[in-house]
Amino acid sequence: MTKQQLIEQIQLKKSFLCVGLDVDINKIPKHLLDTEDPIFEFNKQIIDATHHLAVAYKPNTAFYECYGLEGWKSLEKTIAYINEKHPEIFTIADAKRGDIGNTSTMYAKAFFENLNFDSVTVAPYMGSDSVEPFLAFKDKFTIMLALTSNKGGLDFQAQQVTEDEKLYQNVLKQSLTWDNNEQLMYVVGATKAEYLKGIREIVPNHFLLVPGVGAQGGNLQDVCKYGLNKDCGLLINSSRGIIYASNGEDFAQVAQEKAQELQSEMEVILNNMQ
Amino acid sequence: MTKQQLIEQIQLKKSFLCVGLDVDINKIPKHLLDTEDPIFEFNKQIIDATHHLAVAYKPNTAFYECYGLEGWKSLEKTIAYINEKHPEIFTIADAKRGDIGNTSTMYAKAFFENLNFDSVTVAPYMGSDSVEPFLAFKDKFTIMLALTSNKGGLDFQAQQVTEDEKLYQNVLKQSLTWDNNEQLMYVVGATKAEYLKGIREIVPNHFLLVPGVGAQGGNLQDVCKYGLNKDCGLLINSSRGIIYASNGEDFAQVAQEKAQELQSEMEVILNNMQ
Repeated sequence: MTKQQLIEQIQLKKSFLCVGLDVDINKIPKHLLDTEDPIFEFNKQIIDATHHLAVAYKPNTAFYECYGLEGWKSLEKTIAYINEKHPEIFTIADAKRGDIGNTSTMYAKAFFENLNFDSVTVAPYMGSDSVEPFLAFKDKFTIMLALTSNKGGLDFQAQQVTEDEKLYQNVLKQSLTWDNNEQLMYVVGATKAEYLKGIREIVPNHFLLVPGVGAQGGNLQDVCKYGLNKDCGLLINSSRGIIYASNGEDFAQVAQEKAQELQSEMEVILNNMQ
Repeated sequence: MTKQQLIEQIQLKKSFLCVGLDVDINKIPKHLLDTEDPIFEFNKQIIDATHHLAVAYKPNTAFYECYGLEGWKSLEKTIAYINEKHPEIFTIADAKRGDIGNTSTMYAKAFFENLNFDSVTVAPYMGSDSVEPFLAFKDKFTIMLALTSNKGGLDFQAQQVTEDEKLYQNVLKQSLTWDNNEQLMYVVGATKAEYLKGIREIVPNHFLLVPGVGAQGGNLQDVCKYGLNKDCGLLINSSRGIIYASNGEDFAQVAQEKAQELQSEMEVILNNMQ
């Protein structure tokens, strides 16, 4: 998918919502446990109920890997289902990978080719040659951790590396010198909304993937105030607040209502931009 | 496995060799391609030929994930084979994971419980609460990236965060304050041998996993000079230098010879310690 196609989808749906498919078998409705593949069945119903309200889906690979082969199968079926039924949707493998060059190429193949995701999240600790192999894939996006929403996120990301630069700012700046950096997006946690103004000064044009709205306490209005750019430039992720809003037989319906609430807020925000 | 069991194995085998199972289907001997699962077949023969010379095996997950479900199956069979035939061997899932707390727990379950590895590699960028969930697993080890062997490793890891501390040093120091930090080990690239003296001042007692000897240019003698501690405290990884030493039908035999060369060097080094 190209960046332009993502922007067009946002304009069409009046939404920049990403639904996180972090599916814990212990939290899904009991009536699904008798189906052949409960995690896929859960995802399928969530997707059917929300695809017109969301522009992206983001399965977190940890929630699939923890079930081994069965989990990987559920992940394969989920991404295949999205790609077949809703090819306009932007797909994110939330995998937080990163390794030395030739190994990063293998990870890129795993997510971009084998599973056919549009994007994958990566960690920056190993530097340029651990991320550039991902950026070499045409029309695929690499979403690099910059400033994360968890408490420990500040342990290293907020370390002062020069007089006026913290590590996450340095990560952003250095990444702009890498080959094909226009294929980058960045993870910025919603709980750090006040940092977004400074981040937008460094990366005015790139998309930001913002988790942490809802369950983790981030506020949509604050994020948009500082994070929007001319293309919208934001993908706001909500996982638990949507997919676990009900754990009864009405879970998909309630997920739709929660997604609808966020989409409505987003529509107002996008209309106000014009 | 306990740390004491690992140390006893090192003393018994007179070796601190880790064999990296980074298996690229394009690099393995052609005669294996007709077997049902060429990657597992390759690993099995490498393991059969080297298990008495090595104390650890380290499959890199990227090389399995890139083949999707089939690759994950080869990984499962490989770790099951090691655990069944050679339960004394320390196993490392080289996965470089790390995410917010509840998600890291899922990754820990994937590698420590579902696949039953003794350890997993993790990236520190997301801080304490992304690593501590791994450390909560008894008799399992978490091997955190500190200073990596690739060129880009210095991009961020070598950033000066205080007057006398670089980021990788800060990562090491902070990690010593985390819950169950005695279950930590650290990745330190062999190409950065001169840094090992300073690293040993910060973490005198922890094991270091050292990739980059051989193909990447690191030198075993230099690494040992600065990196050994009273327990040995080193696991030296070699991947390509052993597993791809021949790509003919004699690959396992030649891998054994290469592993034997390293083990012999290690035996001399360990004998000199006493």
